[in-house]
Amino acid sequence: MNQSPLGKIAVVGSGAVGCYYGGMLAHGGHDVHFLMRADLDTVRRDGLRIFTKGGDVYLPRVQCAATSEEIGTADLVIIALKATANAELVRLLPPLIGSRTALLTLQNGLGNEAFLSGRWGAERVMGGLCFVCINRTAPGVIRHLDHGSISIGESGRPVSERVRGIADAFSAVGVEAKAVGDLDGERWRKLMWNVPFNGLSIGALANVADVLADAVLRAEARALMDELLDAARGLGHAIPDSFADWQIERSGSMGDYKPSSMIDYELGRPVEVEAIWGEPLRQGVAAGAKMPRLALLHGIIRHLAERHAGFPG
Amino acid sequence: MNQSPLGKIAVVGSGAVGCYYGGMLAHGGHDVHFLMRADLDTVRRDGLRIFTKGGDVYLPRVQCAATSEEIGTADLVIIALKATANAELVRLLPPLIGSRTALLTLQNGLGNEAFLSGRWGAERVMGGLCFVCINRTAPGVIRHLDHGSISIGESGRPVSERVRGIADAFSAVGVEAKAVGDLDGERWRKLMWNVPFNGLSIGALANVADVLADAVLRAEARALMDELLDAARGLGHAIPDSFADWQIERSGSMGDYKPSSMIDYELGRPVEVEAIWGEPLRQGVAAGAKMPRLALLHGIIRHLAERHAGFPG
Repeated sequence: MNQSPLGKIAVVGSGAVGCYYGGMLAHGGHDVHFLMRADLDTVRRDGLRIFTKGGDVYLPRVQCAATSEEIGTADLVIIALKATANAELVRLLPPLIGSRTALLTLQNGLGNEAFLSGRWGAERVMGGLCFVCINRTAPGVIRHLDHGSISIGESGRPVSERVRGIADAFSAVGVEAKAVGDLDGERWRKLMWNVPFNGLSIGALANVADVLADAVLRAEARALMDELLDAARGLGHAIPDSFADWQIERSGSMGDYKPSSMIDYELGRPVEVEAIWGEPLRQGVAAGAKMPRLALLHGIIRHLAERHAGFPG
Repeated sequence: MNQSPLGKIAVVGSGAVGCYYGGMLAHGGHDVHFLMRADLDTVRRDGLRIFTKGGDVYLPRVQCAATSEEIGTADLVIIALKATANAELVRLLPPLIGSRTALLTLQNGLGNEAFLSGRWGAERVMGGLCFVCINRTAPGVIRHLDHGSISIGESGRPVSERVRGIADAFSAVGVEAKAVGDLDGERWRKLMWNVPFNGLSIGALANVADVLADAVLRAEARALMDELLDAARGLGHAIPDSFADWQIERSGSMGDYKPSSMIDYELGRPVEVEAIWGEPLRQGVAAGAKMPRLALLHGIIRHLAERHAGFPG
């Protein structure tokens, strides 16, 4: 339909992240198609609403589909499915992928680019890290609470024209975006927040404000960050200590924000245990880092999440 | 009344542990007086029932009192109050203490002998470690599930005649008892079970069988034991690695036993956070041990217990 420089975009996984980033692109005039399941009928009828600090966005007509076949081949596929559902991509992605289709995963944690690269070729794959406090509060309703920047790059490759073009497109629709050359290093930087804060939100039932207000938990969050710093450095990513301090400081403005893992856990949905805690632990230990706190936290969350999965919401 | 070699015994804190060990002594003909609060009327009316593997015990008439003054000076005070209620002892103990009164604490964790010694003199104070799976299932009703031995000794002193006499008295009433010279070392040995199993019962909502069945949690329990081994050795207590293995193995027979801390936590009662996790962490770190897993577990449990305390049961 339109002649956006990104071409035809498919969004797979239309939770908070998919609807927010896809919705902002659609609002900016891009040709965005959402693959939806639970929210399909509501969004077809009522559209998509994004409540943000910077001005609310209402998209009365949204291109959405129940199957990948309805969407067909896309130029860019944005993957925002939970990492726990990666097995479903084997079925969902093929109808969307043509010879030149690029894949951009916005999924959390480690292992997603590797999964996509193994199936559809590393040359297609980009990753985006979303630094955003966002919740889906009802079908088709996204509440954007804080932050919102996205860092886009490719694993082990410098910034490409393709990456720069996507970052520019996001910037143009009001989403702060950055093209990054060291995507893997950026993933470790992001884990420095997700591992302790998502982890303690489940393990200690503590939201961000709770962790910061409890001197012992706050020190434990910082100690977990130190383990991740060691692991990241062992893997060749230079991250200064001051970055950990900044991760603690910037969290102060989040108030009693519940990390997405906490909401997933409370609702009995699958928690991204391996992407956020398990894979960093394995990669860090393999690189020679000692990660005793992460090992214990992973064990606790893994058990809690398995025990809790499928509970009524 | 009778002329038991232990003389007049007062039991302060009549939960599962106080009722079981005090009840077995009373059943054997000792002059035992229970200080009771919540269960007083029920026990006065219905007596005390102890369901055990080795034959049930029914005590139709139990000497119990609502105040220490009613009991008066005792020869031996058995303290089985929760460690979190130690401040109450300042009020409860004085009417029971005469010039020759001995104090035997059956409380969990570290710090209880030091508390009693600081107030009433170290020479009075003995400690007993209860290796027992026991629950109070209703007022005046104790269910003894497994194990049951008690190790009695004095902190920093060899086995005394007094200690041997109490151990013999317990043995004579059918409670396996041992006089030990290294009470502090024994406390660390017991912590090697309580720290991981009570800890993961709250942190991971995993009963004993759950921990043993989950390979990752089981390995984490063993790793917590290794941290305690290091700490205990740093404090001069020689404990072999094989003791940790045995702690894991012997737990297999407990089935889905819920550690007492888990029951306390589930019912919104105070959890002995500092006695079981906080004080061992402080003593171990002061002795030069690295205890990152215990530090994280302590932070998590401390936060959960504070958050949960006072919830309706």
